[in-house]
Amino acid sequence: MKDIDKLRHSCAHLLAAAVVSLWPEAKPAIGPVIDNGFYYDFDLPQPISNKDLAKIEKQMRKIAPTWAGFEKQKISYSQAQEFFKDNPYKLELINELKKDKQPITVYKSSDFVDLCRGGHIDNPNKQLKYFKLLSVAGAYWRGDENNKMLTRIYGTCFFNQDDLDDYLRQLDEAQKRDHKKLGPQLDLFLFSPLVGAGLPLWTPKGTLVRNLLDEYVWQLRQAKGYQKVTIPHLTKKDLYEKSGHWQKFADELFKIKTREKHLFVLKPMNCPHHTQIYAHHKRSYKDLPQRYAETTMVYRDEQSGELAGLTRVRCITQDDSHVFCRFNQVKQEFLNIWQIVDIFYKSFGFKLSLRLSFHDPDHFENYLGTPELWQKAEADIEKIAQSQDNSFTVAKGEAAFYGPKVDFIAIDSLNRQWQVATIQLDINMPERFDLFCINEKGEKERIVMIHAAIMGSIERFIGVLIEHLAGALPTWLSPEQIWVTPIGREHLDYAVKVNNHLVEKGFRSLLNQEGSLGRRLRNFQKEKVPYAIIIGNQEMTNNTVSIRNRQGNQTNQVKLDDFINRLDQEIASKKLELSW
Amino acid sequence: MKDIDKLRHSCAHLLAAAVVSLWPEAKPAIGPVIDNGFYYDFDLPQPISNKDLAKIEKQMRKIAPTWAGFEKQKISYSQAQEFFKDNPYKLELINELKKDKQPITVYKSSDFVDLCRGGHIDNPNKQLKYFKLLSVAGAYWRGDENNKMLTRIYGTCFFNQDDLDDYLRQLDEAQKRDHKKLGPQLDLFLFSPLVGAGLPLWTPKGTLVRNLLDEYVWQLRQAKGYQKVTIPHLTKKDLYEKSGHWQKFADELFKIKTREKHLFVLKPMNCPHHTQIYAHHKRSYKDLPQRYAETTMVYRDEQSGELAGLTRVRCITQDDSHVFCRFNQVKQEFLNIWQIVDIFYKSFGFKLSLRLSFHDPDHFENYLGTPELWQKAEADIEKIAQSQDNSFTVAKGEAAFYGPKVDFIAIDSLNRQWQVATIQLDINMPERFDLFCINEKGEKERIVMIHAAIMGSIERFIGVLIEHLAGALPTWLSPEQIWVTPIGREHLDYAVKVNNHLVEKGFRSLLNQEGSLGRRLRNFQKEKVPYAIIIGNQEMTNNTVSIRNRQGNQTNQVKLDDFINRLDQEIASKKLELSW
Repeated sequence: MKDIDKLRHSCAHLLAAAVVSLWPEAKPAIGPVIDNGFYYDFDLPQPISNKDLAKIEKQMRKIAPTWAGFEKQKISYSQAQEFFKDNPYKLELINELKKDKQPITVYKSSDFVDLCRGGHIDNPNKQLKYFKLLSVAGAYWRGDENNKMLTRIYGTCFFNQDDLDDYLRQLDEAQKRDHKKLGPQLDLFLFSPLVGAGLPLWTPKGTLVRNLLDEYVWQLRQAKGYQKVTIPHLTKKDLYEKSGHWQKFADELFKIKTREKHLFVLKPMNCPHHTQIYAHHKRSYKDLPQRYAETTMVYRDEQSGELAGLTRVRCITQDDSHVFCRFNQVKQEFLNIWQIVDIFYKSFGFKLSLRLSFHDPDHFENYLGTPELWQKAEADIEKIAQSQDNSFTVAKGEAAFYGPKVDFIAIDSLNRQWQVATIQLDINMPERFDLFCINEKGEKERIVMIHAAIMGSIERFIGVLIEHLAGALPTWLSPEQIWVTPIGREHLDYAVKVNNHLVEKGFRSLLNQEGSLGRRLRNFQKEKVPYAIIIGNQEMTNNTVSIRNRQGNQTNQVKLDDFINRLDQEIASKKLELSW
Repeated sequence: MKDIDKLRHSCAHLLAAAVVSLWPEAKPAIGPVIDNGFYYDFDLPQPISNKDLAKIEKQMRKIAPTWAGFEKQKISYSQAQEFFKDNPYKLELINELKKDKQPITVYKSSDFVDLCRGGHIDNPNKQLKYFKLLSVAGAYWRGDENNKMLTRIYGTCFFNQDDLDDYLRQLDEAQKRDHKKLGPQLDLFLFSPLVGAGLPLWTPKGTLVRNLLDEYVWQLRQAKGYQKVTIPHLTKKDLYEKSGHWQKFADELFKIKTREKHLFVLKPMNCPHHTQIYAHHKRSYKDLPQRYAETTMVYRDEQSGELAGLTRVRCITQDDSHVFCRFNQVKQEFLNIWQIVDIFYKSFGFKLSLRLSFHDPDHFENYLGTPELWQKAEADIEKIAQSQDNSFTVAKGEAAFYGPKVDFIAIDSLNRQWQVATIQLDINMPERFDLFCINEKGEKERIVMIHAAIMGSIERFIGVLIEHLAGALPTWLSPEQIWVTPIGREHLDYAVKVNNHLVEKGFRSLLNQEGSLGRRLRNFQKEKVPYAIIIGNQEMTNNTVSIRNRQGNQTNQVKLDDFINRLDQEIASKKLELSW
């Protein structure tokens, strides 16, 4: 365990101690460390809200100086059951440990005792100072909707005040940009309780954004010789038994018993289906590479507690592709995809870092194929990565079960890291599905597959993009690009004319005439529309327009054609900054 | 029962008698009348093929003159069980009749006795003359893959030789055009045994055709103010309980039990999801109509025995749309859709006939809502239909459970009828989902929904289109439009130049250089490619091309730019005939 994690884990103990001292009937459930902090779930005798956090924090600061250390005690199952007899959550955990024949340890600080595996700091009274409770949320016990809803308290802790302040500032900015708030506010997507959690519905505006992004990826792919294919979302179980997914991922698969009692599966990925299109014909080496692209939804049976906005959903739209090629074509195909990834992410101002995800030789049972195949494939990938002037890290144990991967990590404007695009070399599916081409000698030759997604999950990418750009999508991607805003009634006719002209030229332009001028000019900025065209007496007299952008900068008396020309260039080049 | 059905039903008895007299161990199962004929399923002691049909037909002609009539006998359950004791299929039927307390009748002709509900001709010895056995196929007992595979023999029968001959001629033409043969031959789609029956996979060529068709419909819709939306294929059961689909269609729904034991459903239609997008905001009357369009796959748990090529699948791609509007906007919205349907089907040379599908007042329990709502809605639709200079029929009992429909029937080049587009007025979903707008008075006003699909099922439409055009898709829709064909090696460079120029101009043009010239010129016609450009000495010298179309007509020495201009016009106008 890293030191910072030990610190935060210790702070979770402190939180539990404070909550129990404030509400003696409170039942602490679990309190793990997470990225950038920790949480603790409680079954509380009364509901609490964010307003109560100050009181709890005060109690924590009162208790902390009394904690000299964490005293470890190994106890028997029956002792543990006796000690936690009033806490059904700890009892459930104890029974599981017993079932798995794991030892039971508790840790004691002052008079607070918690069931715990260990990993603490040495001097809580000195080190537990720079913490902050962040929020209260409901959370089902073990993330399962069928269980009781508990109260989750999130917090964080650092080794010094400066780090804590930095983090809180970043958090504040991230909260303002939270896609779960901004997305519905910009009317891009929604969730319906009747449809269910993790299943977003996309409005006309959100669908436009999805389709524009997808079209961009497609343009880049088409130039590299890709072709679109189409598959159903359903398959007999047989396909995944053959591919090996059934054995590896059965838990996460949505399974369907048909009326004829057959077992069908909702697809969690597309590769096995795509192999069937390749395998349907005998392919000559002259037909290779075959490059199939398909943007399609895949489904995973995620637990309710794991779902979060667009970043973790049950319905994932993948911009997926599979290249079927010979071994000697792998490098060029990898580089083609690499180029698409570079162009795509740079146009949004993301920095990219690179991770080679290789297999873990100590756990070879997690992978298909032979060690020799893996070593060769990984050596090839490392060589390709070296040929690209990119620095990279190697992560053992992060490979897909069928082959090694190149994972691209996007670094956003708040310096957060998001795993996005991936290129995967697959040496195993072609074996399992017996995929080959007929080579120059007229013989069957085993081929190789390359899996690649550029956005990965369109849902997740849009979530990341909204937060990265604080909702201000570039003009080419904005569902509404221009609001034509007449100052008064007398300017309406001219405004209509201007708006019609813009629509005819293919811009997404609207008339902005509801409410007061002030409200109309506030609203276009609030809705992150790139431009307002403002029309008053001067503009009508001079046959011009005035342009205000969403940052509030205004340029007066512009010829409409000049605006159109600059806008055309801005859109065609997919520029991130506004032209005016 | 219609006379022709009585004739064919009688002929099915004759077929069973002939089969049993040839193979005494044969067990007849069921033998219903179908469109244009009949079939009978047998459990046979040995496999038979189409080659055996002549022998069976000969036997039928031997038996027919001995059949003076059909003698009806009502017998008890135990008598029936005794009589059919060696035939498990008839026993299963008898037991079901017994369970339902239905009487049992058998019909005897000469010495052949069959379990039968009745419906025969009077003089089999005179009338059973103009019949023909058509084919042998495997068919699971009751269409269920889990049951034994039986042998199905298809046949037809008419009252005179001319009608039989006409039908056989039409059948012959239809067989040549069968999309189940032509589709894979043109490399448009395929089925994989690992994925399963009724779940087609679409190749690059097939996907192009799907997308071009969909794009065409979208262009027509966009001009009418439609917007695209996007929904997942999954939902909690709750959505369909609210909509009423759960109660009406539970059998045909693919149901999913999640790992958390929730009941999810794979969507069989899109309307309930779309209501959630509408309902997410409070809508002003000024925001109406909201017109949502989405091309998306829906899933139905069809029985294996019902599946057929692309015309009956488990995965249906619908070009669906829902208009949310006020009652006084219904007529205009109906007419907008009507216009799209007209333009779309005429561009493929289909004639359209019209059916108003209304509710059956004698079975009002099958519908949602009140009789008054239905009467008003149907009167409105009839008025709209009358305003369109169209003759129509009214079909009582053919409505959707939520409202009356206008169904369009396309008549293909073989004079066959296919139900295709549909416009449905829905007065019930808005009630169930409480959909409203805020009207001019600031009050809540109930709205109405219009469901419409243009192609309906893209799978089915492509199946119908292939048979209608015998695979010769119009140029705009052909996955490959031009094969540039150099006569000899020495013409290759010029051919490459011509091909590159065509590709740059946006045509789907390929170089046709594998194999002998004769084979290459046969192949482009076989693959229904609209044009081959042929390049030899003369063309190189004169800087021209020669054009051969897929009917085999050739025009020599054409300037490439002239060809391109004519082709551009042909494609832009979506002409059905080739320009050269």
